[in-house]
Amino acid sequence: MSEQPTNGTETPGAVVDLLGLLAYAELVAFFRLSEDASLAPTLADKAELAQLATVEFGHYTRIRDRLVELGAEPGAAMEPFTAAVDAFHAQTAPNDWLESLVKAYVGDGIAADFYRQVAELVDPGTRELVHEVLSNAGHSEFVVARVRAATENDPKIAGRLALWARRLVGEALGQAQRVAAERAELAGLLVGRVEGAGGDLAEIGRMFARLTESHTARMNALGLST
Amino acid sequence: MSEQPTNGTETPGAVVDLLGLLAYAELVAFFRLSEDASLAPTLADKAELAQLATVEFGHYTRIRDRLVELGAEPGAAMEPFTAAVDAFHAQTAPNDWLESLVKAYVGDGIAADFYRQVAELVDPGTRELVHEVLSNAGHSEFVVARVRAATENDPKIAGRLALWARRLVGEALGQAQRVAAERAELAGLLVGRVEGAGGDLAEIGRMFARLTESHTARMNALGLST
Repeated sequence: MSEQPTNGTETPGAVVDLLGLLAYAELVAFFRLSEDASLAPTLADKAELAQLATVEFGHYTRIRDRLVELGAEPGAAMEPFTAAVDAFHAQTAPNDWLESLVKAYVGDGIAADFYRQVAELVDPGTRELVHEVLSNAGHSEFVVARVRAATENDPKIAGRLALWARRLVGEALGQAQRVAAERAELAGLLVGRVEGAGGDLAEIGRMFARLTESHTARMNALGLST
Repeated sequence: MSEQPTNGTETPGAVVDLLGLLAYAELVAFFRLSEDASLAPTLADKAELAQLATVEFGHYTRIRDRLVELGAEPGAAMEPFTAAVDAFHAQTAPNDWLESLVKAYVGDGIAADFYRQVAELVDPGTRELVHEVLSNAGHSEFVVARVRAATENDPKIAGRLALWARRLVGEALGQAQRVAAERAELAGLLVGRVEGAGGDLAEIGRMFARLTESHTARMNALGLST
């Protein structure tokens, strides 16, 4: 029924850390998207953001179940990451509907990139989960449509939202670096190696650079320059 | 692909009203449960309430899709009922975690009773939807466990929550009567007949009495006397 935590080269502590971080991030994403929906101009838009929220909650339940399979207690696994994730959201509360849409899109995109990067670094069971979560990601086409409609004829709004997106990524990377510094095993997993004390910070920097690059590509697709 | 709105004895206006009311109630239930989850003492409890919220959202999407099938615009169908549903929630914001649990349980129970009562009064397609929604209702076993644990050894808490449940039902019935008074066709549908101007208020009263009775039975099951 349940698998035992793996040992040795698969660094179970790091995998539990990773899943704990992702679980908490998804759970909070659910609550934040639900809350941000209050900014929606219409009931239909409100419901669309709620739909995105329920997708994040689905991810959360899958990751939580995997933690239980690995013999970890989900609450304890999430706990080390609540401060960083909460700080990110405290710093990035959207001021209006368009900011909340861009935040949903940027957050979903960074999360997907991150899942993709770590998928190859973990045990097969966890990898399968990551691919499942990825295949069920997104549903954010409506975000692209809404943002494009608002910015197409108004470069001022486009400029403001581009700045906002840059700030979101900056805050996300800042909190990610904080997490990497505090959780040596997790940082080691993320750079594809296991070291007792910390991983290679330059390698982590390169991973963050790759995330930033694909973020830029997404912003271009959205009609926002970075 | 899509069915035409039915005419004549099936009172499409009343069915659209009914579905609009239910859709909006489910959508708001999603947002309120998400918000009330902030009162949860643990991450696990928070996630449990979020789970209930996503079930309500699932109901919303099914009802919305049915409205579209019937040729109605969901936003327009919900609009006449926003004031009453919003007023109910404004009057019943929970003050703590236990109140939010009792509200989730009471709301879910009344909604289920209501669905059951109307299931036989509508066209076959809508009836099927109602049965589907009902078969996917609940998941609130954890609510019973939490409330029982809190009240078992503390009659004072039990008394406070029993009062709270009574207030919830009172507010719900008050808003329901307001809706019945304003929407004659819907009121007619609910009492199983179609009248041009208003339905039989005594019959509506009896329907409400049946809802109240099964509420009392639920409260007893929960260990709260009414």
